[in-house]
Amino acid sequence: MPTLRIALAQVNSTVGDIAGNSAAVRRWSREAAEAGAQLVAFPEMMLTGYPIEDLVFRDSFVAASRAGVDQLAADLAADGLGDLAVVVGYVDADGPAATSAEATPGRGRRDASALLFGGKVAARYFKHHLPNYGVFDEDRYFEPGDSLTVVRFGGVDVALTVCEDIWQAGGPFTAARRAGAGLVLNINASPYELNKDDVRLPLVMRRAAEAGATVAYVNAVGAQDELVFDGDSMIVTAHGELLTRAGQFTEELLIHDLPLPAADAQPNKAEKTDAAPLPIVEQWISHDMEIERVSLAAEPHPSRRDKRDGGVADRIADEAEVWSALVLGLRDYVNKNGFRSVIFGLSGGIDSAVVAAIAVDALGPSRVFAVSMPSGYSSAHSRDDAAELAKRTGIDYRTEPIQPMVDGFLANMALSGLAVENLQARVRGVILMALSNQEGHLVLTTGNKSELAVGYSTLYGDSVGGFNPLKDVPKTMVWQLARWRNTQGDPPIPENSITKAPSAELRPDQKDSDSLPDYAVLDPIIKGYVDDDLGRDALIEAGNDPALVDRVLRLVDLAEYKRRQSAPGPKISGKAFGRDRRLPITNRFREGGL
Amino acid sequence: MPTLRIALAQVNSTVGDIAGNSAAVRRWSREAAEAGAQLVAFPEMMLTGYPIEDLVFRDSFVAASRAGVDQLAADLAADGLGDLAVVVGYVDADGPAATSAEATPGRGRRDASALLFGGKVAARYFKHHLPNYGVFDEDRYFEPGDSLTVVRFGGVDVALTVCEDIWQAGGPFTAARRAGAGLVLNINASPYELNKDDVRLPLVMRRAAEAGATVAYVNAVGAQDELVFDGDSMIVTAHGELLTRAGQFTEELLIHDLPLPAADAQPNKAEKTDAAPLPIVEQWISHDMEIERVSLAAEPHPSRRDKRDGGVADRIADEAEVWSALVLGLRDYVNKNGFRSVIFGLSGGIDSAVVAAIAVDALGPSRVFAVSMPSGYSSAHSRDDAAELAKRTGIDYRTEPIQPMVDGFLANMALSGLAVENLQARVRGVILMALSNQEGHLVLTTGNKSELAVGYSTLYGDSVGGFNPLKDVPKTMVWQLARWRNTQGDPPIPENSITKAPSAELRPDQKDSDSLPDYAVLDPIIKGYVDDDLGRDALIEAGNDPALVDRVLRLVDLAEYKRRQSAPGPKISGKAFGRDRRLPITNRFREGGL
Repeated sequence: MPTLRIALAQVNSTVGDIAGNSAAVRRWSREAAEAGAQLVAFPEMMLTGYPIEDLVFRDSFVAASRAGVDQLAADLAADGLGDLAVVVGYVDADGPAATSAEATPGRGRRDASALLFGGKVAARYFKHHLPNYGVFDEDRYFEPGDSLTVVRFGGVDVALTVCEDIWQAGGPFTAARRAGAGLVLNINASPYELNKDDVRLPLVMRRAAEAGATVAYVNAVGAQDELVFDGDSMIVTAHGELLTRAGQFTEELLIHDLPLPAADAQPNKAEKTDAAPLPIVEQWISHDMEIERVSLAAEPHPSRRDKRDGGVADRIADEAEVWSALVLGLRDYVNKNGFRSVIFGLSGGIDSAVVAAIAVDALGPSRVFAVSMPSGYSSAHSRDDAAELAKRTGIDYRTEPIQPMVDGFLANMALSGLAVENLQARVRGVILMALSNQEGHLVLTTGNKSELAVGYSTLYGDSVGGFNPLKDVPKTMVWQLARWRNTQGDPPIPENSITKAPSAELRPDQKDSDSLPDYAVLDPIIKGYVDDDLGRDALIEAGNDPALVDRVLRLVDLAEYKRRQSAPGPKISGKAFGRDRRLPITNRFREGGL
Repeated sequence: MPTLRIALAQVNSTVGDIAGNSAAVRRWSREAAEAGAQLVAFPEMMLTGYPIEDLVFRDSFVAASRAGVDQLAADLAADGLGDLAVVVGYVDADGPAATSAEATPGRGRRDASALLFGGKVAARYFKHHLPNYGVFDEDRYFEPGDSLTVVRFGGVDVALTVCEDIWQAGGPFTAARRAGAGLVLNINASPYELNKDDVRLPLVMRRAAEAGATVAYVNAVGAQDELVFDGDSMIVTAHGELLTRAGQFTEELLIHDLPLPAADAQPNKAEKTDAAPLPIVEQWISHDMEIERVSLAAEPHPSRRDKRDGGVADRIADEAEVWSALVLGLRDYVNKNGFRSVIFGLSGGIDSAVVAAIAVDALGPSRVFAVSMPSGYSSAHSRDDAAELAKRTGIDYRTEPIQPMVDGFLANMALSGLAVENLQARVRGVILMALSNQEGHLVLTTGNKSELAVGYSTLYGDSVGGFNPLKDVPKTMVWQLARWRNTQGDPPIPENSITKAPSAELRPDQKDSDSLPDYAVLDPIIKGYVDDDLGRDALIEAGNDPALVDRVLRLVDLAEYKRRQSAPGPKISGKAFGRDRRLPITNRFREGGL
């Protein structure tokens, strides 16, 4: 039985940075080779970054990707890595884009995996199952591949697959069984969702059983706009044994020695599955998949004493997962977009306190700037709590009282009530943007998902900012995260920010509870309506108060126009207010006929 | 040869307003019946509005649509219209939504057409070709139908189809030929694009020839968020004769007497096409379309002297087309969202002048509020031009000088350069939003497509607003529209606003030309890069200056984050900055490797 030393490169790439991503492939490939690996696999779309969205419609971009993968193969050989098999995701195309009205745009574009060997692209595979739900729009961008590529490498038949191919029964994994593959490589750009790692392992197990082969699953790590990729790469045998598993939210090279069946040990493999047809075979056959084979002579790995076992990394706690996603989401947005630093309003409340702690963990205190912007309605304890957090974390902290500017407007305009409340929030927005323009910081928004859902924020006021770390974090989870973070080393967040009743402090003695139900009651309704698409009746059946359901649903419906103009933020839930939830602004459908 | 009196109801519906849309169907159906029509056809998704986007994932919404169409059939019969065949678009579903991770969301949802007759849904058809490009995401939302529905009505075989079915060769129209249909009904929600009407007529002609049948094409009219539907309904014979055509951007009932072949006059119709296979037949057969037939006894239309001929409405000029789209887009956004009035900054420049004229045409002067917000850098002629426009149009007009508020910030913060320029724009934004909160107006943004493309605007400053009529209008077209509008009756726009050099007036003697190339040079580059997805090399080959191309492309790339937070506005081009162009914010791909 041959043994392959496999490396799964769970690494970060940047959308559009083909040169930088190629350099990363060469760097990690060298490391894999130095560790004795014969094959290293990088994530889906490693070369281009993921998701590239409408960039795929630009011929110049696709051409750069295609040229880039050829250049990368040559460069790897020049690096002395020509006998390392390098599997890397990129964008390919059959020909120029179809643009006429009667043709389907994106025709011929492929979400591709290339196996680089000997200075050349030795084999290509085109993703077959294209996801087109949630954050995914791949039917817009790609044509599905209709053949499975199997590479005989080091005496083992290795099948190439991409991401969604593993999420659907049938298809490439059934074909891999028919082809008698000993190993199925699955390269991914699979975005994080809370507890998604709990779903992935059983999924990979099911598909390994379906293929009758070991599955090596490698996922990207890093963030792109709203999406965070959490890693969690792994290798699972056909019998469901988890051999090795990488960490979450960290770049790493997971190296493992895999004993695999020799390709010629299974002469009658085709008959084997034909005799026991799978229920999904019909679905598959309709796509007329052909099996392509490529043979490569790989050097068997020299036997060594140091048998490599990547080990199984522990899963981290839920709070640590979310926190890591928020930290990585912010760090990558800031760094990949070339910002030196971030700035935000630090009110002493829980939301901005948590944003400050995330920013410090993501960027270090020297890149974090906070501004206290008290009004006449700001309590003394709020200012004290903000100052205390700044002291604990070592971030830059200054005070800009807003009353003089607010008075400038009030002296010249006849404003009252809500207009005056919003005016204060907007003056704060103007101050933050002025400091951003003057000093070059990225402004962070600090509104949580609960507020955004029900529209409890001021458009162009506290909603100002280029990125919002809490965009997808419900208020109850904000508190939970604050408590958890305070248990990890020195507590950055003053206890008072966690325990006091939340308030916008835009009028005397204002409390969130004047306008909104208790967050412990509100958040489950938001989850049901937003994340789970439940209607009024289902929410009431679930035990929520009918009048409250009606009120909350109406607020959520009417806040759509505000969300349309909100900053991006890391997705952590089933449905963030981003690419995964797309609703009309003009919408008269009222649950329960309100 | 039987004659059917057909009515095409080119009407407006509102997303989510199932009750209101049903009432409209009943009202227009009564009118059609009173005109002696035997069959009336309404647009795609008439009952639910279009596009419904992620509302389709809410079971309660789909259930409301399904119940709504049954109720509508019963109501029509109760109205005494049971013997009128009413074809209406709605959302149907095979069963509850699939939500598990391995299932495809949206499974079983159908973009459907129902034929209502005798108080019941007599026949249903599910759209077969689902568009998934540009503004369309229908692979996300629907499953394609796989059978053609043919209704024998008044002795004629009538095939039902929906929208995209007509944009692709093969499919339902080929099946209609095979079925020997005498008439193909095609119901649409086809969004406006400049000159799209020039494409539609030849398209309908091609498909009528393909079906070997007369085609009745009915389109929606009205606006929904970014989309404007322009009507342009028509009837075309198999021989390419345009029998009748409705107006553009107007609700109307297009009534026409159609002599059609009797269903039993073509006994060998199936053989006819089998003998001469179409090149697209193969594509179609892979979907295994079955043909379903429904028979209805319709009263032949009583012969009358007043033979009905809908006539062929003249096409309007390009400028009139765009103007109508902008007026309808604004009017429907304002009215469908329940706003009483709009407010915006009126600077004396061309953009806000054109917005004012659009708003007056859309809403009448009593619902339009303009604010002059001069600074120390505002020229006297600017203020005069703004006042003159207000006088000519009769809109509400007031002056709020910004200097006192700007000074309030400058006295308390050390700001300079761009920060001071942006501060002025943001103070104007705060003033407009304060007036919006105080008086209840919708704030309109007045930035044109050229500015938005290159990021020549202040985030939370002049970009403030809930809707932007000029979002998809390049600056050169803004001037063109102004000149054209001034030729239609009394000229609303002062000549000086059209002829003077454009300026943001944020520093002394500032001109747009300090920062940007001439708009006559800039706009074609933007069109090539944004609308046509051309890369750097293609733009230079087209004759643009290389250095200028590099500069503009970089500006467009870097403005993505601003556009992400911009208000919606009516789409008039191949690619607006909306649902039809989706790019990552973080994107390091630089054309030419900049």
